[in-house]
Amino acid sequence: MAGSRFTVVGGGSWGTAFAAVLAGNGHEVVLAMRDADRAREMATSRENGRYLPGFRIPAGVEPVALEPAAVLADADVLVLALPSRAFVDVCRQLAPHLPGSTVALSLTKGLEPDSGRRLSTVAADVLGCGLERVAVLSGPNHAEEIVRGTPAATVVASHSMPLAERLQELVATPRLRVYANGDVIGVELCAAAKNVIALATGVSDGLGFGDNAKAALITRGLAEMTRLGLAFGADPRTFAGLAGLGDLVATCCSRHSRNRRAGELLAEGVAPADVEGRIGMVAEGLVTAPALQRVAAERGLELPLTERVCAVLDGEPAATAVSVLMSREPIAEF
Amino acid sequence: MAGSRFTVVGGGSWGTAFAAVLAGNGHEVVLAMRDADRAREMATSRENGRYLPGFRIPAGVEPVALEPAAVLADADVLVLALPSRAFVDVCRQLAPHLPGSTVALSLTKGLEPDSGRRLSTVAADVLGCGLERVAVLSGPNHAEEIVRGTPAATVVASHSMPLAERLQELVATPRLRVYANGDVIGVELCAAAKNVIALATGVSDGLGFGDNAKAALITRGLAEMTRLGLAFGADPRTFAGLAGLGDLVATCCSRHSRNRRAGELLAEGVAPADVEGRIGMVAEGLVTAPALQRVAAERGLELPLTERVCAVLDGEPAATAVSVLMSREPIAEF
Repeated sequence: MAGSRFTVVGGGSWGTAFAAVLAGNGHEVVLAMRDADRAREMATSRENGRYLPGFRIPAGVEPVALEPAAVLADADVLVLALPSRAFVDVCRQLAPHLPGSTVALSLTKGLEPDSGRRLSTVAADVLGCGLERVAVLSGPNHAEEIVRGTPAATVVASHSMPLAERLQELVATPRLRVYANGDVIGVELCAAAKNVIALATGVSDGLGFGDNAKAALITRGLAEMTRLGLAFGADPRTFAGLAGLGDLVATCCSRHSRNRRAGELLAEGVAPADVEGRIGMVAEGLVTAPALQRVAAERGLELPLTERVCAVLDGEPAATAVSVLMSREPIAEF
Repeated sequence: MAGSRFTVVGGGSWGTAFAAVLAGNGHEVVLAMRDADRAREMATSRENGRYLPGFRIPAGVEPVALEPAAVLADADVLVLALPSRAFVDVCRQLAPHLPGSTVALSLTKGLEPDSGRRLSTVAADVLGCGLERVAVLSGPNHAEEIVRGTPAATVVASHSMPLAERLQELVATPRLRVYANGDVIGVELCAAAKNVIALATGVSDGLGFGDNAKAALITRGLAEMTRLGLAFGADPRTFAGLAGLGDLVATCCSRHSRNRRAGELLAEGVAPADVEGRIGMVAEGLVTAPALQRVAAERGLELPLTERVCAVLDGEPAATAVSVLMSREPIAEF
């Protein structure tokens, strides 16, 4: 189903790669960026030199400065590919200009840092469009591989299944399978929490541990994520699916993963405040971990891995955090 | 709980590493090997040069030739660390000499190749000791890392929970957490099936696909394994645990994994019959895949990934197998 008009807000690696996927399907794509200089530079060079060096941005993608009225006027779909820290502010700028028929699709994997709210609810409230016009997309989708065209799969979720299915048709390609899911809560909590578990596995890597330790952390991490989801009314099957297990594995095991890398740097003694500077990209887990711990605590929920990640972010040595985890009493597996 | 007498049968990498773990806990360990020359050589060199080069076998492990009467006479626990192809034959040799109080612990990750039976039932029948004296141990436990002493966790399962808990105490170390589980069926099916999924992810690697594709395969693989388990009366939680998800991730993602490597070689066009020769070790998935497909077919169960692996083993080009998988109709995720 070609020929829709998409406005992708956010010129990071995933925003750029997703814009290219859409253009490949014959859609008109505006790639709107907060940094007008970078937008101009990308429009000329046809390359996102900072986040996807070497990838030629296809002709169907138009990089522009983020001028809300101009970029939203004709948009059928607004795609939000922003860091969680910028999400609510940009939504506020966009809100007055959102046409009544435009739907919003969030690609952001995190929570609103101050409130701990899921970003689909932030989008629905701040954009004033209601949850029925909002969807989220999440899965094991490293941008570097998507632009290479190797096979991948992802999940689009909305409280409105017709919207999820419409976006499924618009986004899917022969190399990117898209599954529709009605469990927005589950998909968003997976997307947020998996970055925190990836920090933990990065710490394990940084301490020189191996694949056995990482596999155990991933297993306990998915169990922790699933308990979190159940407490918030999510469908546990989502956590066993692509947006849960799939993205968790991709994030914890891949050399492309920034959150895994961030954990490695923490284990090496890099100060939390310096980690993103060293990586050169946002590592959402650093912001998500404390937000997640807060919302879990409000419900009396214990998240042992998330708590240790927060402790490391507050200065606990990585080796101590691992000792605490390893010394929990084992009796039966369940 | 030190001071038990273990006889480990099988001098591969895992048998050797597991013997060393036991010796580290103060147990007396006989490491009995079918190849008398290799046993003699290891007793002298204190090294398993073929499977664990560079690792010094600790003093508490005694490598000997497999003489059933001699090695079983004083054994409290018989540990079976054999390839699935040799399992039933060796059990037949051991059976007449098994003392009435000796329990058996299987480390083998596979099925009886001809019958497709789980190996704990083969052991109980052939050894004549009954299921209450049999346990299995499985989890994300690359031998190369266990002997380095990096943290790991595993599962011991028995129809007799007292036996599982006794073995838990005997085996656990500060670096190897052991969980007890009553779901023998689930643990054994996980151990067998995960090697088949690892072959599939190896094929994906060999075709040059990335972490997105692998994460999707792991996700679909675990779903396939869980459906298999449910059909055989296993506990689905086992599949989400260390013996299921944990071992699957370790096997699919690690450079140590022979089954993943075997899949890579298949994708590169190496003939199935030549793969193990190239790796220099047994890759259980090559034998397990057809056995699993057969037992699934007997129950009318469809295992799409396992079927494609079997097709590749029967000569289907790897790229064709992937196309078949990618073209299955997606509608909703569940």
